[in-house]
Amino acid sequence: MRPDAFDWIDEERVLREKAGLVRALRPRPAVATLTDLAGNDYLGLARHPAVTGAAADAARRWGAGATGSRLVTGSTELHAALETELARFCGAEAALVFSSGYTANLAALTALGGPQALIVSDAANHASLIDGCRLSRARTEVVPHADPASVRTVLAGHRGRALMVTDSVFSVDGDAAPLAELARACREHGAALVVDDAHGFGVVGEGGRGGPADAGLAGAADVVTTVTLSKSLGSQGGAVLGPARVIDHLVNSARTFIFDTALAPAATGAALAALRLLREEPERAARVREAAAFLHRRLTAAGLQVAPPDAAVVSVRAPSPQAAVRWAADCRAAGLAVGCFRPPSVPDGVSRLRLTARGDLTGRQLDDAVEVIVRTAPAA
Amino acid sequence: MRPDAFDWIDEERVLREKAGLVRALRPRPAVATLTDLAGNDYLGLARHPAVTGAAADAARRWGAGATGSRLVTGSTELHAALETELARFCGAEAALVFSSGYTANLAALTALGGPQALIVSDAANHASLIDGCRLSRARTEVVPHADPASVRTVLAGHRGRALMVTDSVFSVDGDAAPLAELARACREHGAALVVDDAHGFGVVGEGGRGGPADAGLAGAADVVTTVTLSKSLGSQGGAVLGPARVIDHLVNSARTFIFDTALAPAATGAALAALRLLREEPERAARVREAAAFLHRRLTAAGLQVAPPDAAVVSVRAPSPQAAVRWAADCRAAGLAVGCFRPPSVPDGVSRLRLTARGDLTGRQLDDAVEVIVRTAPAA
Ligand SMILES: Cc1ncc(COP(=O)(O)O)c(C=O)c1O
Ligand SMILES: Cc1ncc(COP(=O)(O)O)c(C=O)c1O
Repeated sequence: MRPDAFDWIDEERVLREKAGLVRALRPRPAVATLTDLAGNDYLGLARHPAVTGAAADAARRWGAGATGSRLVTGSTELHAALETELARFCGAEAALVFSSGYTANLAALTALGGPQALIVSDAANHASLIDGCRLSRARTEVVPHADPASVRTVLAGHRGRALMVTDSVFSVDGDAAPLAELARACREHGAALVVDDAHGFGVVGEGGRGGPADAGLAGAADVVTTVTLSKSLGSQGGAVLGPARVIDHLVNSARTFIFDTALAPAATGAALAALRLLREEPERAARVREAAAFLHRRLTAAGLQVAPPDAAVVSVRAPSPQAAVRWAADCRAAGLAVGCFRPPSVPDGVSRLRLTARGDLTGRQLDDAVEVIVRTAPAA
Repeated sequence: MRPDAFDWIDEERVLREKAGLVRALRPRPAVATLTDLAGNDYLGLARHPAVTGAAADAARRWGAGATGSRLVTGSTELHAALETELARFCGAEAALVFSSGYTANLAALTALGGPQALIVSDAANHASLIDGCRLSRARTEVVPHADPASVRTVLAGHRGRALMVTDSVFSVDGDAAPLAELARACREHGAALVVDDAHGFGVVGEGGRGGPADAGLAGAADVVTTVTLSKSLGSQGGAVLGPARVIDHLVNSARTFIFDTALAPAATGAALAALRLLREEPERAARVREAAAFLHRRLTAAGLQVAPPDAAVVSVRAPSPQAAVRWAADCRAAGLAVGCFRPPSVPDGVSRLRLTARGDLTGRQLDDAVEVIVRTAPAA
């Protein structure tokens, strides 16, 4: 008999099991039973009553869905307000909201790249940026991680349209990109710089204005920033910020903008409420950075291999995928949720616990977390 | 002086202006001032109090955002409930929810395609499917629209993994794909069939169970269906439905699943409430089809060129992009919102008014809509 069309999937499943790389979903209940050092709700706003209240109000006032793409029926005055306030907060000329950070990144790279362009891409960039490079059909040159000299070399060898793309804060190790230096390298060669500030926005820079603002690049004519509304703002969605002509270009040509239903009103309203809270309470950003520094200091002192955090993400090395899974499970059994990153979610094949500092964790919660992580650590 | 990195954008803007293809956002107010024949809220559920109430409750109970990707902290029991009920409703073994229909399509095609595979793709497929083919790195063969014979020919010439992908109801002309015949063609060659049921789900088939169920393909071992939660269910998000092993494979390998924040609780809760309404009130689906048939009958009788609708989308030809824009603007001035599709949103370069029937439009609203569209039609 002819084999079934999906029999190859079973073979891949067996390989994955042997490699210790099987993933499974673990739906959580509404009332948290664990201390969360795994989520990306850095400012603790996802459950802030002003934010959840804004989500509820928006659903009631504007509907549960946006009913169409942004260019048909999906643009509401709520989307426009969020765009205006996001741009103002980050010092950008204009902003455009998407249904996710993922589709915002695909939009920026496909609309600014294209077959004639060169994209220079940091080796540790997020999956959505890598997919954006692929989709753009641009020639993509991957350069070593955080290496402006290599960016210069690649740009020097190219004539014509070019852009460099980088995470602002890298999602796996939590280190910051050398944005000011990268912007100089790009400018020397007339190239644009695209920065994914998913993990910088709300955490890095004065009042959480993000990586590009912190590097003196707010409002720059040759810099485009993408952010997600799903981390510091505790909601869902993404945005691209930059010069008005770039935003207009995205409206007219970005496929993940034109052919995607607009962000739901509830998520739009929640992000707007969270942004206003961040603006009114700028100390929220500083508290996240302090919590991350605390985790790094204490875990390093206990002998663990911890990358120095530049924002909220604190990355702790594990000896193997299996050890990382066991470590995370032991933390969970002790009441602590931590992230566990294994191949293919890590650029270098090294498995890690990924901790995320949150501005609303108490000193006691942080102390307890350190105790659990150290106690359950695999023998080195 | 060196030209700015984005000067090329101004040149593209000028070309776009000359071609009559400039798009601009038009944010709408919370209280509708127009009759909506443009949105995709086919069942009129986006503003149903049970649906907006569920969105509001979910935001309050589960938070404004999911706080992480599905494999880290983003899976809630609400996501699991939606997946269970979606699968049961469509007769599939399992389902997986995404942050959009766009990312669901990218996931299905990248995880089931891959460099070793052949993807046979209908020429009129949605942008998200085309992007999915590109991202998958599979060899992609585009076949003429709705042409099972060509699918057979291409599959016959290939050895190894293959799949065919098609919209169930095409988003521009509203015509249905010959799903039963395509499934037979695929089966003859051991290929899988991937169906994007974005415009069929909730409208087509008994009780709105969608295109694949209507074609006798519910639960088929070699068929995968994608749906969006943003049209008939009036919310936001997407889902992939199919054999359990396929869903497990997506959990383990689909980049737009693993590296994307989970769908917000409000959108998840709203979709679940809408699905339950549809299940309890199956006549909602039939009403949409009747409204579409009415529009087609009346507009054709008035001498307009209207494609026979197989679901909610009713497509009316316009002589040029400029005429289509003017026509849509005249409808708007008369209180009627209609879609206006121009290149590059149309596969064949023909501009159209795109009307969407909704189950909650009254006879009077439909009569008035026909009167406005006919009165403002450009001279042939
Ligand atoms: C660096 C980075 N960019 C983009 C994204 C995608 O954002 P979203 O989850 O809002 O789609 C993520 C994480 O999800 C990320 O970590
Ligand atoms: C056929 C089709 N597939 C997929 C999508 C994408 O779904 P979503 O808007 O939920 O991302 C759409 C429309 O938006 C569509 O028309």
